[in-house]
Amino acid sequence: MTHNHAFPAGGEPTWPTGFRGYTGHGGLRDSGDDISIVASDRPATSAAVFTRSLFAGPAVLLSRKHAAGRGLRAVTTLAQNANVATGRRGEENAAEVVRRVAGILGVPEGEVLIGSTGVIGRPLPMSTILPHFDRTAERGLAAFTAAPRDVARAMMTTDTRPKTASRTVGRARLVAVAKGVGMLEPDMATMLAYVFTDAALSPADLDTALRGAVDRTFNCLSVDTDTSTSDTVAVIANGAAGPVDPALFAEALADLCLDLTLQLASDGEGATKLLRVTVGGARDHAQAKRVAKSVVNSPLVKTAVHGADPNWGRVLMAIGKCTDETDIDPARVTVKFGDTEVYPEEPEVDTLGQLVDLMRGDEVDIAVTLGIGTGEATVYGCDLSADYIRVNADYTS
Amino acid sequence: MTHNHAFPAGGEPTWPTGFRGYTGHGGLRDSGDDISIVASDRPATSAAVFTRSLFAGPAVLLSRKHAAGRGLRAVTTLAQNANVATGRRGEENAAEVVRRVAGILGVPEGEVLIGSTGVIGRPLPMSTILPHFDRTAERGLAAFTAAPRDVARAMMTTDTRPKTASRTVGRARLVAVAKGVGMLEPDMATMLAYVFTDAALSPADLDTALRGAVDRTFNCLSVDTDTSTSDTVAVIANGAAGPVDPALFAEALADLCLDLTLQLASDGEGATKLLRVTVGGARDHAQAKRVAKSVVNSPLVKTAVHGADPNWGRVLMAIGKCTDETDIDPARVTVKFGDTEVYPEEPEVDTLGQLVDLMRGDEVDIAVTLGIGTGEATVYGCDLSADYIRVNADYTS
Repeated sequence: MTHNHAFPAGGEPTWPTGFRGYTGHGGLRDSGDDISIVASDRPATSAAVFTRSLFAGPAVLLSRKHAAGRGLRAVTTLAQNANVATGRRGEENAAEVVRRVAGILGVPEGEVLIGSTGVIGRPLPMSTILPHFDRTAERGLAAFTAAPRDVARAMMTTDTRPKTASRTVGRARLVAVAKGVGMLEPDMATMLAYVFTDAALSPADLDTALRGAVDRTFNCLSVDTDTSTSDTVAVIANGAAGPVDPALFAEALADLCLDLTLQLASDGEGATKLLRVTVGGARDHAQAKRVAKSVVNSPLVKTAVHGADPNWGRVLMAIGKCTDETDIDPARVTVKFGDTEVYPEEPEVDTLGQLVDLMRGDEVDIAVTLGIGTGEATVYGCDLSADYIRVNADYTS
Repeated sequence: MTHNHAFPAGGEPTWPTGFRGYTGHGGLRDSGDDISIVASDRPATSAAVFTRSLFAGPAVLLSRKHAAGRGLRAVTTLAQNANVATGRRGEENAAEVVRRVAGILGVPEGEVLIGSTGVIGRPLPMSTILPHFDRTAERGLAAFTAAPRDVARAMMTTDTRPKTASRTVGRARLVAVAKGVGMLEPDMATMLAYVFTDAALSPADLDTALRGAVDRTFNCLSVDTDTSTSDTVAVIANGAAGPVDPALFAEALADLCLDLTLQLASDGEGATKLLRVTVGGARDHAQAKRVAKSVVNSPLVKTAVHGADPNWGRVLMAIGKCTDETDIDPARVTVKFGDTEVYPEEPEVDTLGQLVDLMRGDEVDIAVTLGIGTGEATVYGCDLSADYIRVNADYTS
C-alpha cells in the first residue's frame, strides 16, 4: 500500500501539490542558509505534538497555541538558536518572526508554526533576521524555490546530513523534512520533523494518525537521554490531491516517521552505527519500552556496541537496573544479539567471535524477552563514540 | 569532632585495632593482586546495604544472607570478574570461595561477606583461584600483611588509583577501602566500599549510621547512570577500642563516606574533573535529588563541563526534562555556576569568560534553586570525556 520510493528516478522528493519551500541566510550562523519556510498555497488541516520539557521555549509555546486551531498551513524554522530561556524579549522575537512570515505569505499569523533549535539562552540576532525578512518580502513568492532537501539542510545544527522522506497513498504524497542529532530523547514529540501532504484529511484523522505514528517511532528514539526544549512534530494536509483512506494514510505516515527515526538515530551525534533494541514478552508495551530504553540508553551498552565488544553482560546490567519492574525474573529472561543467544545459553568462545563480527556491522540488533506477557516495543539509538564528546564539549562558542 | 587526617604523618592509614589484611594473585587478571581479605581477629557487629539490581549476582545474594546475621567479621573481594549471570555454577563458586576464606580464618562461613566486580557473564577461573587459596591456607595468618591501600589496589578494575579513607571518633578509628569508576550509579547501595572500625557499636546503631550516610553520599553519586549488579557497602565494628557515642560515630561515618564518594567521582572512568550539583528550594529532598541527578547525568552537561564550554542552557534543558516535576516553574528557577548567576540573569560576554575559567578547574559546582520549598540535595559526578569511550569500548576481551 505504501511505497518507499515515491520518486522512481530515485532522486530527492519534490513538494506535494500546492506546497512550496524557501531558505535563506539570516545571520544565525556564519554562513549557509539558516531560515526556512514551507507553505501551502491553500488552507490546510494540521496536527502537531510538542516537547513536554518544563523549559519549552517561546517558539513551542506560540506554536502550541497556533496548532490548537488545527489549520496550520506554513512552518518556519530558525536553525542554530533555540531562543529558549531568553525572557520576554525571546517571546517578542518569536512573535515578530511569525508576523513577518505571515506577512510574506499573506496568511493569518495563527496559521504559521515556528520551530527553533540550537543554543539555549542566547537572544535571536534580530538585527540581521529582520533585514533578511525585509529582503524576502520584496521578492515575495518568487523567493520560494527551495526543494525539501534544501529546507532540511537549512534546519540542520550538528546534523551531518539533511533528512527527508516521502511516501505515497493513492494519488496523495507525503513529504517530510527533519533535523535532530543530539539533545535527543524525544518525549511526547521530538526534535523538528514536519510532514507535508496533499491528501485531504480531517484534523481528527490527522491527529490520530500523527499520535499513533509518533508513539512508535520518534518517541522510541534516544540518542543521549537529553530531551530538547524545542521538539516539534507537525503534519500539514492541504487536500490538493483529494481524500484518501485514513487508515492507509496512518500506515504511510507511520512508515515515513520510522524512516525519519532511523535517519535521526544513524546520524546521532558521533554515531557510527544504528542500535535497535526490541523487548518482547513484557507485561505491556509501556514496560517493554522502559526496559528497551534502559538498554539503548546505557552508556556501557553504547560503548560496547561502538567498540564491537561482545560484552553482553552489560545488557543484563541495563535490564537489572530497572528496579521498579519487580515482575522481571532473571530466570525467565533471554537475550540475543542478532540471532545469537547470549543468555541464559552462554556463548562459547567461537560464538563470541561471531558476535564481534555482528557488532562490526552498521546496525546492531539486540532482542530481549522477559517471559511475562505479550507486550513488545522496539527502540532506536546509536553507539556512543569519542566524536559525541568532541561535538558536544565545544559547541556554543 | 571528626578529623580528616587520622594519621598525623599524613601517610596512608593502617588498620584499626584487631583488623588485618591480605592480598594475593588468583589468576583473575594477568598480573597483580586480584584477591583480598580483610578480617577482624574477634567477633564483630556489622551493617551492609546492597545493589537493588534485578540481576544481582551470587556474591550479593550470598552476602545479603550472611549480612542478615549482623555479625560479619571478614570481607573477601574478587576483582575483574563479577561472577554475575553465571548460573548455578556461579552460585557454587561464590560459596566455595567463602568456604575457603572462612577456613583460612577459622570463622563460620556466615561471618564472611564476598564482593565481586568486573565482567558479567564469565565463570570465575576456579582452576587458578582454588590452588591460590590452598597456598594461602598453608601460610595462614602470616600471609595477612596487606595495608588498606594494598587491599584497595587489589580491588580495582578500571580504577586508576586505590581509594582509602579514615576518620577517628574518640579512641576509635574508621578505615575504609573502596573501588568503582564505571557502571556507577549506586541505587540503595553502591560499588564496593568497606568500612572497618574498632569502635563498639550495636548492630542497630551501625545500621542507622550506615543507611543515613549512604543515602547522602554513595546514593548521590553517578558516573554514568549504570547501576552495577554487584554494589555492596558494609561496615564492620569489632569493638577493640570500646564504645563510642553513636551520633558522633554516625557523623564520622558520613564524613568518611563523603570522602570516598568524592574519590570515586573524581576517578570516574575518563573523568578529568569533579562535577557537584546542588539543588535547593525543592519540595523535598527526594525531588531535589531527582532534579540534581538529571543535571549530573546529562551527557550534554557532562560534555560541556569537560570542554569548559559555558553552555549553561543545557542545565535548564536537564531541569526541563524532569517532566514529572510539574510544580517546577521556570519563572522561579535560578542557576549558578560557582558564584555566577547564569539564569534568569543572563551573563554578559565577559561573564562567560569568567565561566570558562571556572569550568577549567578540577571541580565544577552548579547550584540550582527551584523556589518551591526547602528540600535540598547535592549529587556528585564527573565530566564525560573521550577516555570514557576508550575505556569502555574495549573492556572485556
